[in-house]
Amino acid sequence: DDIGRLVVSCQDGPGIVALISAFLYRHGANILQSDQFSTGSRGGRFMLRTEFHLDRVSERLPLLERQFEFEVARRLRARFRVRSAATPTRVAIFVSRHDHCLLDLLWRARRGELPIEVVTVVSNHPDLERDVAGFGTPFTHIPVTPRTKPEAEQAQLDAIAGKVDLVVLARYMQILSADFLDEVGVPVINIHHSFLPAFAGASPYERAKQRGVKLIGATAHYATEDLDEGPIIEQDVVRVSHRAGVGDLVRRGADIERAVLARAVDWHCADRVFVDGSTTIVF
Amino acid sequence: DDIGRLVVSCQDGPGIVALISAFLYRHGANILQSDQFSTGSRGGRFMLRTEFHLDRVSERLPLLERQFEFEVARRLRARFRVRSAATPTRVAIFVSRHDHCLLDLLWRARRGELPIEVVTVVSNHPDLERDVAGFGTPFTHIPVTPRTKPEAEQAQLDAIAGKVDLVVLARYMQILSADFLDEVGVPVINIHHSFLPAFAGASPYERAKQRGVKLIGATAHYATEDLDEGPIIEQDVVRVSHRAGVGDLVRRGADIERAVLARAVDWHCADRVFVDGSTTIVF
Amino acid sequence: DDIGRLVVSCQDGPGIVALISAFLYRHGANILQSDQFSTGSRGGRFMLRTEFHLDRVSERLPLLERQFEFEVARRLRARFRVRSAATPTRVAIFVSRHDHCLLDLLWRARRGELPIEVVTVVSNHPDLERDVAGFGTPFTHIPVTPRTKPEAEQAQLDAIAGKVDLVVLARYMQILSADFLDEVGVPVINIHHSFLPAFAGASPYERAKQRGVKLIGATAHYATEDLDEGPIIEQDVVRVSHRAGVGDLVRRGADIERAVLARAVDWHCADRVFVDGSTTIVF
Amino acid sequence: DDIGRLVVSCQDGPGIVALISAFLYRHGANILQSDQFSTGSRGGRFMLRTEFHLDRVSERLPLLERQFEFEVARRLRARFRVRSAATPTRVAIFVSRHDHCLLDLLWRARRGELPIEVVTVVSNHPDLERDVAGFGTPFTHIPVTPRTKPEAEQAQLDAIAGKVDLVVLARYMQILSADFLDEVGVPVINIHHSFLPAFAGASPYERAKQRGVKLIGATAHYATEDLDEGPIIEQDVVRVSHRAGVGDLVRRGADIERAVLARAVDWHCADRVFVDGSTTIVF
Repeated sequence: DDIGRLVVSCQDGPGIVALISAFLYRHGANILQSDQFSTGSRGGRFMLRTEFHLDRVSERLPLLERQFEFEVARRLRARFRVRSAATPTRVAIFVSRHDHCLLDLLWRARRGELPIEVVTVVSNHPDLERDVAGFGTPFTHIPVTPRTKPEAEQAQLDAIAGKVDLVVLARYMQILSADFLDEVGVPVINIHHSFLPAFAGASPYERAKQRGVKLIGATAHYATEDLDEGPIIEQDVVRVSHRAGVGDLVRRGADIERAVLARAVDWHCADRVFVDGSTTIVF
Repeated sequence: DDIGRLVVSCQDGPGIVALISAFLYRHGANILQSDQFSTGSRGGRFMLRTEFHLDRVSERLPLLERQFEFEVARRLRARFRVRSAATPTRVAIFVSRHDHCLLDLLWRARRGELPIEVVTVVSNHPDLERDVAGFGTPFTHIPVTPRTKPEAEQAQLDAIAGKVDLVVLARYMQILSADFLDEVGVPVINIHHSFLPAFAGASPYERAKQRGVKLIGATAHYATEDLDEGPIIEQDVVRVSHRAGVGDLVRRGADIERAVLARAVDWHCADRVFVDGSTTIVF
Repeated sequence: DDIGRLVVSCQDGPGIVALISAFLYRHGANILQSDQFSTGSRGGRFMLRTEFHLDRVSERLPLLERQFEFEVARRLRARFRVRSAATPTRVAIFVSRHDHCLLDLLWRARRGELPIEVVTVVSNHPDLERDVAGFGTPFTHIPVTPRTKPEAEQAQLDAIAGKVDLVVLARYMQILSADFLDEVGVPVINIHHSFLPAFAGASPYERAKQRGVKLIGATAHYATEDLDEGPIIEQDVVRVSHRAGVGDLVRRGADIERAVLARAVDWHCADRVFVDGSTTIVF
Repeated sequence: DDIGRLVVSCQDGPGIVALISAFLYRHGANILQSDQFSTGSRGGRFMLRTEFHLDRVSERLPLLERQFEFEVARRLRARFRVRSAATPTRVAIFVSRHDHCLLDLLWRARRGELPIEVVTVVSNHPDLERDVAGFGTPFTHIPVTPRTKPEAEQAQLDAIAGKVDLVVLARYMQILSADFLDEVGVPVINIHHSFLPAFAGASPYERAKQRGVKLIGATAHYATEDLDEGPIIEQDVVRVSHRAGVGDLVRRGADIERAVLARAVDWHCADRVFVDGSTTIVF
């Protein structure tokens, strides 16, 4: 394909859009779509995402990247990334026993709905191996016990090192250590089965039932050391009534979880998500 | 009108519906609509709400009430209430300076959308007097300071004693004392400007912005001594983006607040809400 | 299980609930949940759905049915059905090439989320055979051409005759003849990929794009001779923006289609849907 | 205020963003927010909306406009508009007897939620005069009968000529003639009480009830000669059940109507809506 994508963030100031759009024009790229946002016009953070048309973009990418670095990024002290929209994001999916988020991601990837390549599925249980095999995706079973957790995490890191751009926790019921998050070197997206910050922690559906809320929800966020505190990418809710028991909440919640996680992965892999401190900008 | 309404709650057991429906049939009432729910078939709590047609229901109500007490309620050790659907609930609205919830309730009452009669509006500020006057509703200004709070609450109680069946806190920015809630003798519905239990307490929109949630909401609940912990009647949410500042959240939230509060008041006054411990059943 | 379900419909009149609930009480059944609705208190249609607890309900069903016929149904000239909640509805799914509705139904059935047993999948294309095999469900490939349609429909009827209680058209892209609908003898549920009555007929997403609507939707309805005119069971919508091309509408619509169809099938199989002329009552 | 707003549309081609952003930079304007869209990269239509900071923008606007015309618009053969964000849009609201859309607009304008100045309310009935007076807004009663329609429309045109930038039909139950739309010279926004294109024309709620739809909605669109066919600005829906009669649909629909109309007016007046043939782009 001939579609490229450029994301830039830097301190806000005058002339940034002019500088970047002139660069693209000069190098023959035609802007198809562009989003920008600033957290404040003075001293705020400027973020921009552009999709552009450029013949043979993959081939010209290495040069374009160096030119952008030299002609634009240095002047703005900007962080940027430029890539071909046709290059899929390489993903490792971590999962335990619940299949709904995993299968939905695999199915959407197969349909071409998500710009991802699922490199491997990693699980602390063997239960879902056969389902994953049906999609032709490698499955790595790494058991985890409290005693073996450090070794297990090392095995997980070995299994994905250098092979993935993103880790997705698709109802992975283990807490990843700070060390793991440190060493993995790529973003980690988690799906939490509540409308955070409500019911952070364990057993959110039980607690939702107990509190008598009228809507339950799910939250996709970047995993950080502070459990359930990472920047939120997407959330959604569904109405429930007094008739629904905890089991019904779990079932109805599963639909929200898989929808929210799929959207978060889609947006992340389309370079639409910018982290700004404890929050996100989603174009 | 000839529509009556019966609500019953008691310990669950066999034959309750048969007993109640036979009673209604025997006394010439034709069931139009009926809802029931049990929190568990053994030892659970049974709740029923029935609307029935009965000629000259208002006139026959006192007798029907005694008959139900004698023929049904005693056997079931049930709590019940029977009334004409045409009788409006008498309401006092407490408000501070935000006008949106108050005006929405007054406007809906005038349109005949809510089965209420607003007996008086009580405010700790004089700001909304003129708007309330436009609806022909009495306005009682009772200033409240930390020092005068006990006297102010007494004045509030005096202003509504025996005149209302419900107090609605339509963004009343003072915390009512446990004594007030004790003595007021009627249910009190509050609207909280967050999706409880998230952001309970003060400044929910500021905290929602800070946390970067993707949906904001509002919660209508019965006021109890435990602030923001009362049984939830209704909640709703609206999607917000990174572009929305705190001011935008306040504005968009106002639309949700007034919608949620109007629904909660409507349902309460239509006898559709049953409190069950810390939660509600809403038929 | 010991849960039974009774659905009744008859002309409205006084005493119906009393009669039915007394019957259940007399035969030892304890009502767990009950819904009723009348299309008008005089001359209207009364509909009731009750779930009750009765020891060894499956075993006692044949007798209970005769007793209800004799003691209640004849007096009310009522149509009724009583069955064990544990008995799954036997379903044939018809599909062409789109996999999303089919896979979602099969997956939910496997998870135990739908009270159905998928007896067979019938398709006019062989494409989805392998996916269906993964669920252990029989797959019947019956090609259809304009010339062979009568024979094909006969083959379809033969494949399901006496084996199913429901046919689900899960994006089956052929129009079933009036003869087929006549002879199939069980309800047929269809999913239409628009928010009916808007964009009835072919190519709804193209037409939605052209008209510039801001929400797209899907509709599950009972199939009747009048194409896209059958009683609606469930509908839902999702917001779309100008950025979404027809391809995006198709993708986003697919999520709505599968959700709406799953809900409609669930409700139908839980005996929650009553047809009333060209509309439905859904408890 | 120092915030300006520039909207541009022209045939798409390379270098447009660079040209416009360089212009703004050159004249000291700092882009705060920018949206763009193209209906196709070759031969499509390019649309851009930018908010920028510029000291004393109102004062400098006439010169900036001429400079943009000379330096940018001529080269691109572009249509554009530049204005101060602080300048409210002058609006005439047409209404008949339903008060909900009118009062909501007046109330939001008073709260400062809508960037509008309601110059006058025009009605074919005197009913709402007192409510409008409460907001201090002029009310013009112009009766309309089939026989007097031409004169009435002329009186309407006289009442608003040169004084307004927008006409809002807030449940105005008369059809405006093609001549009126021709001569009024400003956009006209209408609220239709259905989810168009479903139930175009009269009595949508009755027809929605009859068809048994599970969601009802409202549509705000630009009025054109083809009744109910103008470009859609915004739509929304609300769930309804079989319990809701036509009167309930009217009441619940009223909430959607006023919300949808308020959003459409807000977006139009914030220059966020571009008409593209029979559809709109809404930034």
